[in-house]
Order: sequence, then structure tokens, then C-alpha cells
Amino acid sequence: MFPKNCWYVACTPDEYQEKPLGRTICGENIVFYQSDTGVAAVEDFCPHRGAPLSLGYVEDGLLVCGYHGLKMGSDGKTAAMPGQRVRGFPCNRSYPVVERHGFVWVWTGDAELADESKIPELEWANDPEWAYGGGLFHINCDYRLMIDNLMDLTHETYVHASSIGQEEIDETPVHTTSEDDMVITSRFMENIIAPPFWQAALRANQLADDVPVDRWQICKFSPPSHVMIEVGVAHAGKGSHDADPEHKAGSIVVDFITPETETSIWYFWGMARNFKPEDTELTEQIRQGQHQIFSEDLEMLERQQLNLLAYPERKLLKLNIDTGGVKSRRILDTLIKEENQLIENVNL
Amino acid sequence: MFPKNCWYVACTPDEYQEKPLGRTICGENIVFYQSDTGVAAVEDFCPHRGAPLSLGYVEDGLLVCGYHGLKMGSDGKTAAMPGQRVRGFPCNRSYPVVERHGFVWVWTGDAELADESKIPELEWANDPEWAYGGGLFHINCDYRLMIDNLMDLTHETYVHASSIGQEEIDETPVHTTSEDDMVITSRFMENIIAPPFWQAALRANQLADDVPVDRWQICKFSPPSHVMIEVGVAHAGKGSHDADPEHKAGSIVVDFITPETETSIWYFWGMARNFKPEDTELTEQIRQGQHQIFSEDLEMLERQQLNLLAYPERKLLKLNIDTGGVKSRRILDTLIKEENQLIENVNL
Amino acid sequence: MFPKNCWYVACTPDEYQEKPLGRTICGENIVFYQSDTGVAAVEDFCPHRGAPLSLGYVEDGLLVCGYHGLKMGSDGKTAAMPGQRVRGFPCNRSYPVVERHGFVWVWTGDAELADESKIPELEWANDPEWAYGGGLFHINCDYRLMIDNLMDLTHETYVHASSIGQEEIDETPVHTTSEDDMVITSRFMENIIAPPFWQAALRANQLADDVPVDRWQICKFSPPSHVMIEVGVAHAGKGSHDADPEHKAGSIVVDFITPETETSIWYFWGMARNFKPEDTELTEQIRQGQHQIFSEDLEMLERQQLNLLAYPERKLLKLNIDTGGVKSRRILDTLIKEENQLIENVNL
Repeated sequence: MFPKNCWYVACTPDEYQEKPLGRTICGENIVFYQSDTGVAAVEDFCPHRGAPLSLGYVEDGLLVCGYHGLKMGSDGKTAAMPGQRVRGFPCNRSYPVVERHGFVWVWTGDAELADESKIPELEWANDPEWAYGGGLFHINCDYRLMIDNLMDLTHETYVHASSIGQEEIDETPVHTTSEDDMVITSRFMENIIAPPFWQAALRANQLADDVPVDRWQICKFSPPSHVMIEVGVAHAGKGSHDADPEHKAGSIVVDFITPETETSIWYFWGMARNFKPEDTELTEQIRQGQHQIFSEDLEMLERQQLNLLAYPERKLLKLNIDTGGVKSRRILDTLIKEENQLIENVNL
Repeated sequence: MFPKNCWYVACTPDEYQEKPLGRTICGENIVFYQSDTGVAAVEDFCPHRGAPLSLGYVEDGLLVCGYHGLKMGSDGKTAAMPGQRVRGFPCNRSYPVVERHGFVWVWTGDAELADESKIPELEWANDPEWAYGGGLFHINCDYRLMIDNLMDLTHETYVHASSIGQEEIDETPVHTTSEDDMVITSRFMENIIAPPFWQAALRANQLADDVPVDRWQICKFSPPSHVMIEVGVAHAGKGSHDADPEHKAGSIVVDFITPETETSIWYFWGMARNFKPEDTELTEQIRQGQHQIFSEDLEMLERQQLNLLAYPERKLLKLNIDTGGVKSRRILDTLIKEENQLIENVNL
Repeated sequence: MFPKNCWYVACTPDEYQEKPLGRTICGENIVFYQSDTGVAAVEDFCPHRGAPLSLGYVEDGLLVCGYHGLKMGSDGKTAAMPGQRVRGFPCNRSYPVVERHGFVWVWTGDAELADESKIPELEWANDPEWAYGGGLFHINCDYRLMIDNLMDLTHETYVHASSIGQEEIDETPVHTTSEDDMVITSRFMENIIAPPFWQAALRANQLADDVPVDRWQICKFSPPSHVMIEVGVAHAGKGSHDADPEHKAGSIVVDFITPETETSIWYFWGMARNFKPEDTELTEQIRQGQHQIFSEDLEMLERQQLNLLAYPERKLLKLNIDTGGVKSRRILDTLIKEENQLIENVNL
């Protein structure tokens, strides 16, 4: 239950550049490799005897099967094989794939509909005023459980109590709005004490960490499964989210959630900040802190998934705090329904 | 294939007191926790988003979901949730649960039929003249295979050859009787040499360990799956099982077998003795010996289970030594049949 | 999809001699043990309560069940059990089994058709001029994928690039012939540089390793799944495969592929050589080298199997290099079809 006519983050460039990377995305077994024209993505299946092409290597921009040496081009056609005429070989599926913003984006649906302009703009990714650090988790849960998780940050109080959680999150009502295909949930807390993670960020930004702050969380979902979250604190009364830079420490939590199967995901997480962008040590420090915090969600999500599979008949509640997730799922349902109609129409 | 309208041992108090314990019993996912009125047991499923409540914590006698803070009462009703009106929340199933004799007993069937007086009396559990030590194994086998195992101790000669096994077990006929719902198999061996485990018990009891003894084994099954085994040795000719305390060393092997699924169990084993009850070092020593001995059954039972699954069409033999197990299963079959009729009648 | 009326290598003698060996072969759970008359093979299922007999031990040439002491004879009949009359006990299936050539051979089909003369002759196994060293791998793949692998050695260039692979394999056409039930693929490379493994073999044979050589590979499949491969190098121009012994280093790669299930095998591999047969250190050295090289195939075969299961609808190519495997499969298909007809006729 995921839309396929869209761009998903498949990997980061370092994952495929040294040797081919085999990865299942939306149920498709795909191998990513470095072709002459950049990243290429084809079915991870050698047309000769079915070996995974990802066990092979790249030579002259072609993907060489590690079993008997068939050479695959980025178009899915066999380019050569020792001692063989390859013209009649069956063609592998190839996938539209683009490297942009430091990520590799793959289109898992109908290749003819692939439109690079639909890859989201990420202002922080290409601006020297910003720094980015992140990582990748494999999690055994439906990708929508992660969307729910990120669109309702009340869980921070419970799952991340020692770092970013605080009671005031629970006590502050959440606002949910939507614009076109984007869903936004936001929370503004005023005159509170910053939790440990944000105290450290204030210090890193040469700001007092023991004075009251205003804290904001603005979660933005856009399909298929990207969630960008503006988070931060400003010294109280300086304008909160809109305060001048010298009064605040803020960043964007970056979440690309890529379905592997119906019940597992590749979760690309990270943080982009526009203070001290040149401080790579700080980047690594934040990255490790975020790794620690985001690890706390794993068991909860995987056990929630198992519970949902064990109780298929039980309906879940849709509270006000769940509105962001509910609206996001509604958009996804519409996209999936449109795709299915498109396929039906083609088949008529 | 297990009766559900009965009390099963779910856990020991230490397992749920510090933090909630999630455990599957008779196919039911249950969380046990410390409520204001003692142990409580409810479905391990948060009505909000399906997270396992056992990942949460206890606050003011309520079970707090570790995901978004829903607070569950021991009646399965949501007591509170930050920022929410909870009156309309769907109710979780709650299970009759009692702490008694050092164990937690749960009723997995129709709560209206739960009757605490049906929890077995365990004279040794509440008498200072007795000491008890035990442990818990998770075993991948049908609970009835463990009942068979315990109701036919001829396996001691083969599985436990170096500790409690001896040829005379094989050579001595077993007697099987039944009283109401109890099945009893017994064996009395006369004028034999005690095997290592019992030599050690004689010494611990300040008795000569190198003289002939009379040995007894009296296995008592009562439904759903409790097996108490009186075992011991007395110096030969002093009256065997009925000898005066100064001539014998005896104890009760305690076995509570709780189905997890159709092919896995929680096996609570232990030993109660009425000599030197104050000697905690001896209790631990016996416990470790029993742990060692009972571990020897695990592989046999799990591999037997796999074999039975691999050969579903093969019928097993029912020899004289198997009569205890056969009669026990017959009682279980009757109970299960009665339960099913009860359910059918309710549905009419 | 394997023939059952044939001899498969089940194990090596050291595997069953000290204690019984349980092993699944062609889907049959079998226990091998040392009876009075040599190796015996019966169903690994105790007729008493279904325990695996392989957890027991051997006493007076009988297999004693480790659970309750039933004693099984090599004919599958219960010979004795403490305190029991066993005449009416159901009979276990017993399997024709022969120890020959340093291997244990089992007939998994209709015992009446078992004919020891069909066990292949292995001249190297019983001749002091030859030495043999080998090992066993468990691999999760259809046995026919391993036959394909061994009947098309072009994979050496890719999978075993650092030891026995070289470009000239790819460049040299393969010849495929068949005689009765045997399929032969062969390759003769002339005037090439020996790859590392063969350089070492030349040195071990006191031959120059830095001069051009002629190299041969002659793969011989015979049903159900034996592949003997004559391999070697001779100094160039001395007659290649037919050169006098003082000019060459050659050996036979021995492969017995025994199906465990439809998608897993027991793979007995080894190398027989007729130079320096008394040098046990060399035998061990070669064995370790072969272990290293053959390990390189494991991941490829297991991942190929997974890929084939994931793409059941895709047809594989049958190129000239695949002819050996294709012809071998055709022989197997015929054998399986004949067996099925035999069974149908019996059932009429």
C-alpha cells in the first residue's frame, strides 16, 4: 500500500559508488551502480542465470555479473558477454534514477511518468550556510507508522524523555493544517526550560542555556513519505521561530521514509542546521545525538507493527494529536487510488 | 488445544514488579503490572495506536503507554491521557489474576467463571518447615509433551543418566491410578543404590549415602497442567516413602506448565523440601542441580515436537509406561470439549 | 524434483561412527549409525513417542532411543524395550546403505530396486597412487544450481578470480558431449600462464611454475548428481591432458551433490591427485585451498536461489556455455518421469 509513481530516496551516493548496491524498494529488487553517466538502477537479476547483479562489479561504466561476466547497461540491456551474441537477450527493467541534494532518488513506478521536477527542493542541501548530518535505519514496520510517529511529536515526552521530551509538549495543543499535498502539524511552547538536547544546541550557538525559551516544532509531510520538521528554541520573548538568529538555535529534522516491503522501511534521517555550518565536529556530535534519540523509536515501531499484525481486527483511535498522520494517510490513499485507476485505464 | 477456563501460572512476582511484563499465555498477549491493588493483567495492546503497553511503565498504579502516555487501569479502561477525554475509548480485555503461593495465576478464559478457590492448595508454599527454589524455561513444544515427560519418569534412565537416572527405574513397574481429575503414576524401588543426586541429598540431610535405599516417585497430574512429584529415598527397610524423617530425604518436584502457543510453553519448575528449610545455600545448590538436570530435557522435547510436525500422519504408541500421560490427556480432552460446548450454547 | 531411486552420498564414515548422525536427504529424515554389520540407516523417528533416534546412542549394534530406551535394529524393527513386548510395534522404514570409496551411500527410493553395482566406480578412491582430501558444505540452493555451476566453469574467471580464474577460460570455447547417461563439458587452453592455484601445484610437483602451460578442464556429470572434473596443467607443448606425468600436475575435482530439500543441499567436495600421494601435509594444504575457493561459490548460489524464488516467472537463458547443465537436467527430468510412471503403474 504505497504509491509507486513517485521519487523515493534509495540510498546515499557513498553506498553505491565503491561497489554496486542491491536494495529492495517498494518491493522491487534493484541494483544501484556507477555508470558512465552517473548513478544507474536496474533490476537486480542477471538475465543469464538469475544471479543478483549486485554481487558483481563495474567495468567501463557497465555492471558486470559476478557469476559469468554478463555486462549490463544502465538501460537494462545486456551490452556484452564473453563469447556470446547478446542482441536477443531479454531486457531488464531499468529505473529512472537521479542523484540530487546528496541523495539518490529512484522512481519505482511507470518510467514514462518520471519527472525530475517533482524531486523536492531542499534549500538546505545546496547552501553553504547550512550543514547536514544523517544516517540510515532499517526498521520492520509499515512506512505509515513512521509517518504517524513524525507527524505527532507528543511521543517525545515518553520515548525520548531524557533528551528532547518534556511535559510541555503534552500540555500544548497541536495545530494541523494542510496546503495542497502538504500536511503541517505545529506546536509552539512558550517560556519553558529547554530539554537537554536543546540546551546543548544553545551552548553550541553561544547562547545561555539556563533561561526560559520559546520552543517550536513544525512538521511538514509531503508525499510519498517525506517529513521535514522545523525545530528549535529561542530565548523567551524574542519572537520564537521568527526570532533573529542571534537569539535562537534551530534546525530542520530531515526524514525520508522509503518502503522496502509492506512492513519494512529504509529510514533516512538527519538534521540540517544553519548555524556554525563549517563546524564538522559539531555536525558529527549532533549526528550521534540524533542517532541515539532516533534509536529509541525502533523497538516501539517494530513491536507496534507486530501488535497490529496480531490484532488485525482492532481499530485504532484517531485523536486530535493523530490528525497529521490521518491527513497524510488520506493523501496517500488518494494517490494510490489514482495510480490504480491509471493502471486499469491502461489495461482497458 | 488447551483449556482456557482455568488458572495458569503466568509468572513469578519478581518478573512484573519492577517493570511491566509482556507475556503470551494460551495465545493471549497479556501485560502484567503492579497496580494499586496488586498484580493486574490486561491485553498488551494500547487502544490508541496499538503499541504494546508492556513497553511502558507504572505511575500511581496505572499502566502508562510508553508511546503517547495513555494511562490504563487494571479493569482495561483508559483512565487518562494527556489532553484527551478518554471516556469513549474502547475497553481492553482484562484478565482475572491472583498472586498466591509465590506465583501469579491468570485465568485465560471467561472471566465470569473465574473462581479463586480453584487455585490449587500448595501446602509447602506457605509453611516455614518447607523451602522452595525454582526457575523458568521457555520450550518450543506442545504442553502435553511435557506432561507426558513428567508422568513417565522412565526417561530419567536415558535423559538424566548421570544424576537421577538408574536402571532400576526401567525394571520397576509403574502404577497408574486416577482420582477425580487427578492422575497418579507411582514407582517404588527397593534396596537399591541411590543415584548421585540422591546421595547428595542424603549427605545434606546428615544420612549415610553408601547404604541401600528405598526410592519412590509419585507423579500427580491435575488439570490444566500441574504436575507435583513426590520423590525421595529412605534407608532401606525403614518404611520408604512413609519412613520417619530421620531416615529419609525427600522433596516435591514442582511443575507448572503454561502453554504459550500450541507448540510452545513457559515451564515453571522447582523443588520444595521439608528438611533444612532455613539453609538457603542448600536451596540454591539444589536449584542449580535441578536446572542442570531439567536442561537435559529441552533438546529432546523440542526435537520431538519438530518430528511430530514432520510426521503428522504417524500414530504414537501408548504403552503401560505412557498410561499417566494418556489419562491426563483424556481429562484435558474432556475439559476442552466441555468448554467448546459452553461456547456453542452461549452462541445459540 | 530429484530422482529417488539412486545412490546419494549421505555422509563420510567419521560422521556416524562415534555417535548416530541425523541427516535429511531428499526430504527423508534419516539416522545413520554403526550396527553390527556396518553402517545402518533408518527413519529418524522413534515409534514409541516420536523422538529423533539420532539423539540416542548405539549399544550392542542396536540404536537405543535416548528418551525411553527403545532399541531399534537396522531393519527398522524394534528389537527390545525395557519392560515391553515389542513384537507388535510398527516398523520404521530402513534404507539401503553401503559404505564404499570412503563415503556412505544411501538409496532413498524403492528399496527393492537398490543395486549396489550402480554405485559409481571411483578408481582414485582405492588406489595407493592417489590421495584424496575433501569437505562438506551445507548450501541453501536447488541441487541443480550446483550442477550448473560445475558443468560451466566460465564462472571461475569471476567467482574465483584470484586462484583458478583467468580470462582464457572465457576466451576458450567449451565442448559438450554426452555418452549414455554421462554429460561431458571440456575446455583446453593452450600456451597460457598458470593461475596461482596451478602455479602452486606445479611447484608441489617440482615443476617450473613460470613457463607457459596447457590447461584442461573436463567436467563429467553422471546422475543423480555426481560431477567429476579432471583438471590440470602441463608444460606447454608436452601433450596437455595426455602429457607424461613428469610434465604435468593434474587432479580430479570430486563433487557429490546430495539434495536435502528442494532448495538445499549437502555438498561433498574434494580433490583426488596422483602425484605425491603419501604427502599428507600437501593433501591438507590443497584441501584448505579448495575450501577457500569453493567457499566463494556459496553466497552466489544461495543468492541466486533466492532470486529465482523471487522471480518465478522469469525464464533463464540457455547459452552454449550452459549446455552441460541443460543436458544434465534433461537426463534428470527423464529419470524423474520414469520414476513417477513406475509409481503410477504400481498404484494401478
